[in-house]
Amino acid sequence: MPLVGFGIWKVPSSSAGDSVYNAIKTGYRLIDGAYDYMNSKEAGKGVQAAIADGLVKREDVFVTSKLWNNYHKKEHVVEMAKMENDAWGLGYLDAYLVHFPISLKYIPPTEVKYPCWWKDEARTVWNDLDPVPMSETWGAMETLALRGQEAPGKERFARSIGVSNFHTQLLYDLLSYAKIKPAVLQIEHHPYLISEHLVNMAQENGIAVTAYSTFGPASFVEMDHPLAKTAMPLMEHSTVKGIADKYGKTPAQVLLRWCTQRNVAVIPKSNHPERALQNLDCCTFDMTADELNSLSSLDCRMRFNDPGALDKPIRIWV
Amino acid sequence: MPLVGFGIWKVPSSSAGDSVYNAIKTGYRLIDGAYDYMNSKEAGKGVQAAIADGLVKREDVFVTSKLWNNYHKKEHVVEMAKMENDAWGLGYLDAYLVHFPISLKYIPPTEVKYPCWWKDEARTVWNDLDPVPMSETWGAMETLALRGQEAPGKERFARSIGVSNFHTQLLYDLLSYAKIKPAVLQIEHHPYLISEHLVNMAQENGIAVTAYSTFGPASFVEMDHPLAKTAMPLMEHSTVKGIADKYGKTPAQVLLRWCTQRNVAVIPKSNHPERALQNLDCCTFDMTADELNSLSSLDCRMRFNDPGALDKPIRIWV
Repeated sequence: MPLVGFGIWKVPSSSAGDSVYNAIKTGYRLIDGAYDYMNSKEAGKGVQAAIADGLVKREDVFVTSKLWNNYHKKEHVVEMAKMENDAWGLGYLDAYLVHFPISLKYIPPTEVKYPCWWKDEARTVWNDLDPVPMSETWGAMETLALRGQEAPGKERFARSIGVSNFHTQLLYDLLSYAKIKPAVLQIEHHPYLISEHLVNMAQENGIAVTAYSTFGPASFVEMDHPLAKTAMPLMEHSTVKGIADKYGKTPAQVLLRWCTQRNVAVIPKSNHPERALQNLDCCTFDMTADELNSLSSLDCRMRFNDPGALDKPIRIWV
Repeated sequence: MPLVGFGIWKVPSSSAGDSVYNAIKTGYRLIDGAYDYMNSKEAGKGVQAAIADGLVKREDVFVTSKLWNNYHKKEHVVEMAKMENDAWGLGYLDAYLVHFPISLKYIPPTEVKYPCWWKDEARTVWNDLDPVPMSETWGAMETLALRGQEAPGKERFARSIGVSNFHTQLLYDLLSYAKIKPAVLQIEHHPYLISEHLVNMAQENGIAVTAYSTFGPASFVEMDHPLAKTAMPLMEHSTVKGIADKYGKTPAQVLLRWCTQRNVAVIPKSNHPERALQNLDCCTFDMTADELNSLSSLDCRMRFNDPGALDKPIRIWV
């Protein structure tokens, strides 16, 4: 899996094809999507066009998607993986992740009337829990990742499987029974939320860590997130700016490099071609250990993507 | 389960009998022990003496013990519960808890050569992980709690079962498959570590919450805990002292009442009879909502009992 990818959360379906095509043209080789983002089909067309135009081969691009919370029952895991794989139209997904350790009531995907998923357009919260053991969900995830000869008659939708938004305790438990270990853990990760033990625990267990919302509050201001609006923007923080100035890089590049230098993958999104190129170019300088630590010392356990803040809270963090 | 109990962590086995007897004489009706504390047999003798002397009947006292980390395999769960029940010598335990969501290599209890459990006397760390799915451990815990008619031929060692040091994510997963829901969650809990979501999630799901280390750093200073030695003692904090002065109570009583007024049980230990009596008397005044909140606002997520701080860290918190 490449260390730097292009994330398509909040990329409108109308422009997802062009965004992904241009990202590949810029040099991105990892595209991070999810059923929840409602743009897989269009993003897939972008990848297909890039392949058709000879920019890349299928095997050069690493495509990630994720299982949404309403589909944790084993039969729904397989149904949704097939649907998601068909939407992308690339033959297989490179990684398929359990999006959240949260199991909600099933909604037939054909009946989905609202766009993103915790709330509908009227801001009604749709998050009735319908508990499914993670062992059942993961067991179904494993069947997706088995090769044909290991599971005759089964299609193999995903080359690897992983998880997102998991805490160490659930991850330890998962490792105790997994036949196929998660290849990836994707988490919110920035200098305001360094989750040191979680990152270390995953890496010690051979699980690649991917950071989302690497720029901290920036991704959430446009969503009217109260905490994000009051937090000092990381891009303007003197520690970040000081290091950026020293190396002649942008604050965004410093924030991304804080991850990649610690072997944490990043998946920034940008609608601006020049920024997309800058973001991709975030492995070409090395900070000192002191500088990395000075960024880590900004930790204040400030989490933005927290279902515990919903009107009907789901409390997956303490 | 009573809201105020007497905890026997760090009570030497040589004095545990007298301590527990005196606690019952003082009026305590909940005794919180654990295999890890290495004083169950002596504490049990204290309860037995109190019953023999007519201070209480068996059914008036609520006795909790806990399963240590080396015994998460199903056969060991049952073996250790039987041993612990025999040690207390009271016919049954009122609650039996999984002490940590951590599964370590089995050590035959007859071969135990060292006192407490993460480290031996030479401070060698004994914490090799040997993963057992929590579903296996909990399944065995459930057999302990079944009545004879539900599980013919089975002895019933525990009237209720529960967990300790669990995070919300593992607790949600446990609830998804548990036939018997955990009755109790015991956690480190004080104004420096309020774990609001965890407490709310447990209480919303009908799980009683018990706080340990209610006085924060105080319990850990004697163990030479680096963080505890540098933290402002909660007993001396101006917010705590101000409220104590207003109500004519001790700072300890204010810290205990901060829990009990929010329906969180407490299990303080004291070797001083007058303090033990004061601690028990922590439900006889009510703070205002603002005062409770001013205590909660001291939260700085400062955790003292963290196996992530061991020389060989076990990372169960982020």
